[in-house]
Amino acid sequence: MNAAEATLTEHMQGSGDREDGGVPLLAVGQHLNGPLLDHAEGQHFLKEAFQIILEEALCQGTDNKEKQVCEWRDPEELRTMLDLELRDGGESHDQLLRRVRDVAKYSVKTNHPLFFNQLFAGVDYHALAGRFLTETLNTSQYTYEVAPVFVLMEDVVLSQLRSLVGWEEGDGIFCPGGSVSNMYAINVARYRAFPQVKLKGLWAVPRLAIFTSQESHYSVCKGAAFEGIGLENVFLVNVDERGCMIPEDLDLKIELARMQGAVPFLVSATSGTTIQGSFDPLDRIADVCEKHGLWMHVDPGGGSVLLSKRHRHLIKGIERADSVTWNPHKMLLTGLQCSVFLLKDTTNLLKRCHCANATYLFQQDKFYDVSLDTGDKSVQCGRKVDCLKLWLMWKALGTQGLEKRVDKAFANTRYLVEEMKKREGFHLVNEPQFVNVCFWFIPPSLRGVEDGEEYRERLSKVAPTIKERMMRKGSMMVGYQPQKGRVNFFRMVVLSPQISQEEMDFFLDEIERLGKDL
Amino acid sequence: MNAAEATLTEHMQGSGDREDGGVPLLAVGQHLNGPLLDHAEGQHFLKEAFQIILEEALCQGTDNKEKQVCEWRDPEELRTMLDLELRDGGESHDQLLRRVRDVAKYSVKTNHPLFFNQLFAGVDYHALAGRFLTETLNTSQYTYEVAPVFVLMEDVVLSQLRSLVGWEEGDGIFCPGGSVSNMYAINVARYRAFPQVKLKGLWAVPRLAIFTSQESHYSVCKGAAFEGIGLENVFLVNVDERGCMIPEDLDLKIELARMQGAVPFLVSATSGTTIQGSFDPLDRIADVCEKHGLWMHVDPGGGSVLLSKRHRHLIKGIERADSVTWNPHKMLLTGLQCSVFLLKDTTNLLKRCHCANATYLFQQDKFYDVSLDTGDKSVQCGRKVDCLKLWLMWKALGTQGLEKRVDKAFANTRYLVEEMKKREGFHLVNEPQFVNVCFWFIPPSLRGVEDGEEYRERLSKVAPTIKERMMRKGSMMVGYQPQKGRVNFFRMVVLSPQISQEEMDFFLDEIERLGKDL
Repeated sequence: MNAAEATLTEHMQGSGDREDGGVPLLAVGQHLNGPLLDHAEGQHFLKEAFQIILEEALCQGTDNKEKQVCEWRDPEELRTMLDLELRDGGESHDQLLRRVRDVAKYSVKTNHPLFFNQLFAGVDYHALAGRFLTETLNTSQYTYEVAPVFVLMEDVVLSQLRSLVGWEEGDGIFCPGGSVSNMYAINVARYRAFPQVKLKGLWAVPRLAIFTSQESHYSVCKGAAFEGIGLENVFLVNVDERGCMIPEDLDLKIELARMQGAVPFLVSATSGTTIQGSFDPLDRIADVCEKHGLWMHVDPGGGSVLLSKRHRHLIKGIERADSVTWNPHKMLLTGLQCSVFLLKDTTNLLKRCHCANATYLFQQDKFYDVSLDTGDKSVQCGRKVDCLKLWLMWKALGTQGLEKRVDKAFANTRYLVEEMKKREGFHLVNEPQFVNVCFWFIPPSLRGVEDGEEYRERLSKVAPTIKERMMRKGSMMVGYQPQKGRVNFFRMVVLSPQISQEEMDFFLDEIERLGKDL
Repeated sequence: MNAAEATLTEHMQGSGDREDGGVPLLAVGQHLNGPLLDHAEGQHFLKEAFQIILEEALCQGTDNKEKQVCEWRDPEELRTMLDLELRDGGESHDQLLRRVRDVAKYSVKTNHPLFFNQLFAGVDYHALAGRFLTETLNTSQYTYEVAPVFVLMEDVVLSQLRSLVGWEEGDGIFCPGGSVSNMYAINVARYRAFPQVKLKGLWAVPRLAIFTSQESHYSVCKGAAFEGIGLENVFLVNVDERGCMIPEDLDLKIELARMQGAVPFLVSATSGTTIQGSFDPLDRIADVCEKHGLWMHVDPGGGSVLLSKRHRHLIKGIERADSVTWNPHKMLLTGLQCSVFLLKDTTNLLKRCHCANATYLFQQDKFYDVSLDTGDKSVQCGRKVDCLKLWLMWKALGTQGLEKRVDKAFANTRYLVEEMKKREGFHLVNEPQFVNVCFWFIPPSLRGVEDGEEYRERLSKVAPTIKERMMRKGSMMVGYQPQKGRVNFFRMVVLSPQISQEEMDFFLDEIERLGKDL
C-alpha cells in the first residue's frame, strides 16, 4: 500500500464506510448511481426566476412612471430585511424565488431612465440576451477547443474596434474592466522599452516614469502602484481650465522627470475624463510622444465617439496612439464588464509580454492552428467571455445604430445644458465637451450672495443634501464631488438612449424641488 | 461665444442642422421627444432568446443521451458558417434569434456530464438564476449607494468563507478570477513588508523573492512579472513524487535567495495543484514561514474541500496562512467568474494597499456609513458583482448541500480510479489526492513493449490522437499535457455533481474505442 492508498483507507475507516474485503472505494455514503442534481427541477426554477427578473428588474426597473430608481434602506435595516446569513440547510423553491424578488426590489435600478449616477446606465436587450447566453454556456476564453465561437468572435470584434480607431492591423484583448486594460498598457509599454523587466524585475532598469493628466482616471495611478512603479513616478500633467492636458506642460514634465533621473516610457492621455468628460488634445500629445520616443496610450472614457461621424473629431489623433482602452460597457450599454485593450503592434508583443506557456492549456501538438489559443496574451488564466454581448448588440443595431445612440446622447446633453441655462439655480462648471454635465445648483437662499469662504462652505453642503433627499425618495440618482478648488458639484452623465426630454425636464424640476429650502 | 460654443456651432453647421436664429442646440437630427429604445420589443426578444437558451444550451447541452459535448468545426469552416462580420445595418428579429441558436449550437457544452476538460464543469441552476439577475441589475460593486444589496451580501459571503478557513475575523474581496486573486496576495504581502513600494516603486527596496512549488499554478509567475518582481525572483521549490512541495527544500531555497542578496517576503502554497491536484503540506510550510517571518498565501484549486468534514484534513494548516484564494467557480459550480481573495488581516491592509481615494466615488460627506463603500479595496474601478450567484446557490443547498457536492466528487473520483485499475490499458500517473485523475492510456500495440525512447515517443502521441478523435466526434472532452519527464498524459477532472457511474463507464469505454488501433 503506498502513501496515497494509506491516506484513502484512513478516510474510509474514519467515516466507518469501508467495504468489507475489497479495495477501499466509493462507499462514503454517496449515491453513485445517479447525479446529485435534477435538471428538470433546476430548469423550472430558472424559468420562474426569469419571470421575476422580467417583472421586477426590467418592467418596473425601466418604467419612468414609477419614478423609483432605488428603494433606499439604511444598511442595518436592509441587512435585517434581507436575511443574508448562510446556513446549514437549504431553502424551499418558493423561499428562493422570494429572495430573487427581494434582491431585485432593493437593488438600484441602473436601467432606469432617471439613473445618471455613473458612467453606465440603461439596458440593451440584445446585449442582455448575449449576457444570459454567455452565463449559460459558461466557458473560458483561452483556447479554441473550449471556446471555438468566442475565440473567432473576439477576433472579429477587436478587429472592428481597431478599424474604428484607424488601424488596419494590430492586436488586443478583452479585460475585466478599464482599470485592468490600463494596467495592460503600462505592462506592455514597459516590456517594449525594457523586456528584461519580465525576467529580472524592476531592479534591472532605472526608475521609470509615467505621464498622465491631473484629471485622468485614478486607475493609471493604481496600476502604477500595483505594477511596482510607484505613485511618485506618475507625473501629473497640468490641465487647462476645461480639464484638457496641456501638451507644453507634458513636454516640461518629461524633461523634469529626466532631470530627476527617471526614464519616461509612457504617456496615458484621456479622451473623456471621468468627471468633466474632457478630451486631451491627442494630436499634439502624439507630437510630444514622438519627439521623446514614448509609448502613447489613450484611455477613452469616451471611446464610443469614434462611432460618430459628427463627434469623432473630439478624438482626432487617436490613430497615432500605440494602445487604446475602450469600454463598451459605458456609452454602448453592453453591461459590465466589457472592456478592451487594443494595440497597434503587429509583433505579438502582447503575448510575448504576458505568456507563461502553460503546458496543460497551450499544448503545441494540438490538431488545430494553436495560434487560436489566445489565452496566453492575458495575465488571467480563466477569462470570462465578454465579446458576445457586444457582438450580438452590434449585429442587432449595425454600426449605424450604434452611431445614432452616440449622437442621441450628445443631443440629449445639449438639450439639458440649454435648459439649465434658462433656469436661475443652475450654474455650469464648464461648457460640456461630452455627456458629462457638471453643475452647481444654487438654492434660492444663496442666489446673489457674494462669493467667499462662507458662501463656498454653504454651497459645498447643497449637493450632498440634495443627494440624500433624492436617495431617500428614490426619485433619481446623480453623483457629486469636489474637484481641485471647486466645492461639491453635481456630475450628471447623460448616456442612455432610453431617455427623452421628459426625464431631463423632470430631473431639473426635481433638483429645484429638493433644493428649494436650502 | 466661448471655445466650447464655437466648437458646438461648428458641429451644427457641419451637419447642416443649425436652427435659425436661436442658440445652436439639439437639432442634429435627433428625435429628442422619445427614447431610442423600445422596451416591449426588447423584452419580447429577450423572452424568445431565453427559450432558445433553455433548449439549445441547457436541455440538449446537459443531456448525456446526446453524447454531444461539442460540435467540432475547423476554424475556417466555423468562421464562414457563423458570419461574424459586423456591418453598417442591423438584422431582423428572426435573424438575431438564429444567431443566438448558432452560438449555442457550436459552443462547447461545458455543462455536459461528459465535459472533463477543465477545472470547471456542470451547471447549477440557482447560481445561473443569480447570474441572470446580476446581469440584469448591472451594477458595480464599489459603493453602497449603487449596490446596497451586494455590498452587504459580499460581506456576509466573505465572512462565511473566512470562517470555513478557520478565521473569526479578517478581510477579503471578490476578484475577476484566481490569477488576479493571487496577484492581490503578492501586492498585499509586499505592502505589508515594504509599504514604501506603493509610493516609490520597487527601486526603493532590495530585490524581493517569492517562493512557490514547481507544480503551482502559473499565475504566481505571471503575477510576479506583472507586478514588476520578475520571473527570476520566483523560486520554484521542489516537489515530492506526488507533486507536493517539500518543506525542507522551501527552507533551503529561502536561504539560497538570501545568499543571492534577495529578500524573501512571500510563500505561495498550493492546495490542489492544477494538473495533479496535489496538496502542499500546509502545517509544515507554515512552520517555515513563521521561522522566516514570511507572508503565507494559499492558492487552493481545491479550496472547496474546506466544506467537507471528511476531506478537509487535506488542507489542514490553512488557518495559519495570512491569505487564501478561493475559486467557487471551480468545484462549487457557481460559473465563471467567481473568485475571492481572503486575508486574516484586521488592520485594513487591503484598502491601505490599494486605495486611491477617488473623490467622485468615495465622498466622505455621504449620509451613510462610508466604510460600506468598499470599492477602494480593489485595484479595479467598476467591479462586476460576483457574490450573488454563490449566495443564492448557498441559500438553496445550505452548507450541507455544498458538502455533499464535494464528497460526491471525491466518491466519483474513487470509482473511476478503481475502474481504471481493473482495465488493462489505463495506467495512473499517481494515486489521486483530489478530483484530478492523471493517467496514460496504453493502446494494445504498446502493451508489453519495453520502456525506452521509442516507447515514449509513441506513447506521447496517443493522448493527442485520442483527443482529436473525441473532439471530431464530439463525444466527450478531457485534457492532456506532458509534465516534467512524463510524456503526454490525460488529466480528467471529475467535479460535476451531475455525473454518475454511467458517464464514467462510458468515458473509459470511449477512450478504449478511440485508442484501440493506436
